[in-house]
Amino acid sequence: MVAYIGIEGIQRIVERVGVATFIEGLAAEIEADYRRWNDFDKSMRHAVHSPAGVIELMPISDGRLYSFKYVNGHPQNTSLGLLTVTAFGVLADVKTGYPLLLSELTVTTALRTAAMSALAARWLARPDSRAMALIGNGAQSEFQAIAFHHMLDIREFRLFDVDSQATAKLVRNLHAFQWPGVQFRPCGSTAEAVRGADIVSTLTADKRKATILTPDMVSPGMHLNAVGGDCPGKTELHPDILHRPDARVFVEFEPQSRMEGEIQQMPAGFAVTEFAHVLGGAAPGRGSADEVTIFDSVGFALEDYSALRYLYKLQRQYNQSREIDLIPHLDNPKDLFALLASTATVAATPAAGLASA
Amino acid sequence: MVAYIGIEGIQRIVERVGVATFIEGLAAEIEADYRRWNDFDKSMRHAVHSPAGVIELMPISDGRLYSFKYVNGHPQNTSLGLLTVTAFGVLADVKTGYPLLLSELTVTTALRTAAMSALAARWLARPDSRAMALIGNGAQSEFQAIAFHHMLDIREFRLFDVDSQATAKLVRNLHAFQWPGVQFRPCGSTAEAVRGADIVSTLTADKRKATILTPDMVSPGMHLNAVGGDCPGKTELHPDILHRPDARVFVEFEPQSRMEGEIQQMPAGFAVTEFAHVLGGAAPGRGSADEVTIFDSVGFALEDYSALRYLYKLQRQYNQSREIDLIPHLDNPKDLFALLASTATVAATPAAGLASA
Repeated sequence: MVAYIGIEGIQRIVERVGVATFIEGLAAEIEADYRRWNDFDKSMRHAVHSPAGVIELMPISDGRLYSFKYVNGHPQNTSLGLLTVTAFGVLADVKTGYPLLLSELTVTTALRTAAMSALAARWLARPDSRAMALIGNGAQSEFQAIAFHHMLDIREFRLFDVDSQATAKLVRNLHAFQWPGVQFRPCGSTAEAVRGADIVSTLTADKRKATILTPDMVSPGMHLNAVGGDCPGKTELHPDILHRPDARVFVEFEPQSRMEGEIQQMPAGFAVTEFAHVLGGAAPGRGSADEVTIFDSVGFALEDYSALRYLYKLQRQYNQSREIDLIPHLDNPKDLFALLASTATVAATPAAGLASA
Repeated sequence: MVAYIGIEGIQRIVERVGVATFIEGLAAEIEADYRRWNDFDKSMRHAVHSPAGVIELMPISDGRLYSFKYVNGHPQNTSLGLLTVTAFGVLADVKTGYPLLLSELTVTTALRTAAMSALAARWLARPDSRAMALIGNGAQSEFQAIAFHHMLDIREFRLFDVDSQATAKLVRNLHAFQWPGVQFRPCGSTAEAVRGADIVSTLTADKRKATILTPDMVSPGMHLNAVGGDCPGKTELHPDILHRPDARVFVEFEPQSRMEGEIQQMPAGFAVTEFAHVLGGAAPGRGSADEVTIFDSVGFALEDYSALRYLYKLQRQYNQSREIDLIPHLDNPKDLFALLASTATVAATPAAGLASA
C-alpha cells in the first residue's frame, strides 16, 4: 500500500495547518533542503512539447529519498474550463525503490511556488519592502499574496491582469483574510501596478516570448520575482532589464534555467548566482539597497521533493493518511504470479473486442 | 478525476479477460504501436542509481497520448520480502496535459514483458520451435511460459534457477493450467536446461555483469531472449555469443540498448537491428534456420504506453472504472484558491511540530 493525498486530502491538511502556516513551514523545508544542495542528484526536467503545451517529469534524489513530479503547462486550457497547470508526484525510498507517497501537486505546486518566491525574496529583496505588484492574477496570485504578506509583511498589493475579472477574483479571495491595514489596488496597466512597488512578481502564463516588464518600469532597489517564464520560448522580462549594470540575477539550478528561464535570452557566459550558494554563504545576496535583484524562477525538482517530504510528515502528524493499492504485497516476492493465480484456469478463448485499436 | 487501476483492479481485469488472452491482446497492441515507430517522441529513460538498485522514469508520446512509467529494480529486495521490481504509470492527454489513467504496472510490466518477448520470438525464432529454456524462475517466469505456450505453441519448458524453490514454485503455478501434453523439466544447471532448447529466455535479476550463458551452450538456430540484462553494468550473455558470425542482434530502441543491454559489452559500431524495422519490413528478421537470433531486450517505454492504452480501453469495456481525486475540478480554472477558501479564515498561528525536520 502507498500513502495517498488527493484533492480532498490536501484540503483537509491545509485546513488543519492553516494556509499561511503551511506555506511558511514549506518554505522552511525548502530552505533546509537548499542548504544541502550538494547532497542532491540533480538533473534537468524531461519535457515533451506539443503545440498545445508541455508535459514534464521532474526527478531528484538525495540518496535516501527520491521524488518526481509530473506537471503540465497548457495556457489555452482555461478557455476549455481546465487548469493551465496540473501536477502530481511521488516520494520513494531509495533503498527499496518502493513508492511511499502519491500526492496531488496541483494545489501543492501553487503553495510551493509561493513559498519559494517568498523564501528567495526574504534573502534578496530589501528588508523594508512593503509594496508589491502582482502582474498576472490567475491561479498562482492568491498564494503569492499570502506568502509575501505572511513571510515579508507586505502591506500593499498592486494588481494587474489583462483579464480584469481575474483581478476582481483575486481581490475577492484576499478580502476574506481581513488582514488589518493591507491594501489591494487594482491597476489599469502593468506600468501603473509596478510604479512604487518594492517587489514585482510576474505570474503570466502565455507560452511565448512576452515582454511583461520593460526597462523603464524597473527602479533601483526593486526585487523582481519572475515566475511565469519557465519554458524554452517563454519569457516575461525585456532582456535589457537583465543587462542593467546594477542588476544581479539569481536562479535555482543553472543548467535548467539557461534553457527555460529569463536568461535563455542571454549569452552562455552571462553571470548568474545559484540561490543555494547565497543560502550557504558562498555567494553574496543583495549587495546594496539600490541593486536590482532578479529571481529568475522556473521551479526546480528540489522544491517538489521538499513539498512531498513535508506532506508525508503532515499526513501522519494529523492522522490524515489514506492508502491506495498501487503496489502489491506478496508473501513470496518471487511469486508475483500468485496475484493472478485465480485467473489461471480461465479458458483462453479470445474475448470480444480485444483486437488492436 | 483520474481513472485508477490498482492491484485489485488489474486482478479483476485479468480475471475477466483471461491471462493468456490478455497477453496476446497486449502483444497485438505493442505490435501495432511498433509499426508506427516514427510517430513516437522517444527518449532514453531517466535513471537514478544507488548501491541498492535503480529508480527509472520512462516517458514517451505520440503527440496524442503521453505515458510514463515509474519502475525500480532492487535485486536484494527479495531478501527483505519485497519485490525486485515494482512499477506504476500514467496515461495522459497531450492536448490538455491532463492525466487520464493512473495504473499499477508491477503486474502489468510482467505481462507486457512476456508479451514483448513472445512477439519478438514470433518474428525471430524458428517457426518450428517447441522447446524453451527458462533461466531464472522468479517473478517473470510464469508470464514467459504462458506467453510462449499460448503465442508460439511451446510444449516443453526446461527450467533452471540457482534457487530450486523458485523452480518448484514455477512448476506448481504452471501445473494449474493443465496444458495437455506440455512438459516442465527442472534441470540441474543452465547448461542442462539450455541443451536442446529452441528458445532460451534469461530472466535473472543480479545487478552485475553476469555470464548466465556461455558460448558453448548456444547451438545454431537458437533464439535467445535476453531479458534480465537491462541496466548499465548488468548483463547475462558472454560477449563471444554476440560476436558469433552466425548471430544477429535485435534491440528495441538502439540508443537505450547501447547503454543498458547486452550490447553495452560491444564496441559502438557493433551492428544491431531495431525490432520496429523488422516489423515494418525495412530490415530482415531471421535469415535462415541456422542463424542465432538474439533479442537483447531491456524494456522500452513504448511497450508501457501500449499497456496503459490497452488497460484504459479494457477498464471501460469491462465496466471496471474506478476514479481518484488526483486532479482538481474547478468551476473557474483561474481560481485554484477556491479549493482552499475554507482555510482562509484559519488563524495563522504556528502549528506545533511544523519546524523543519
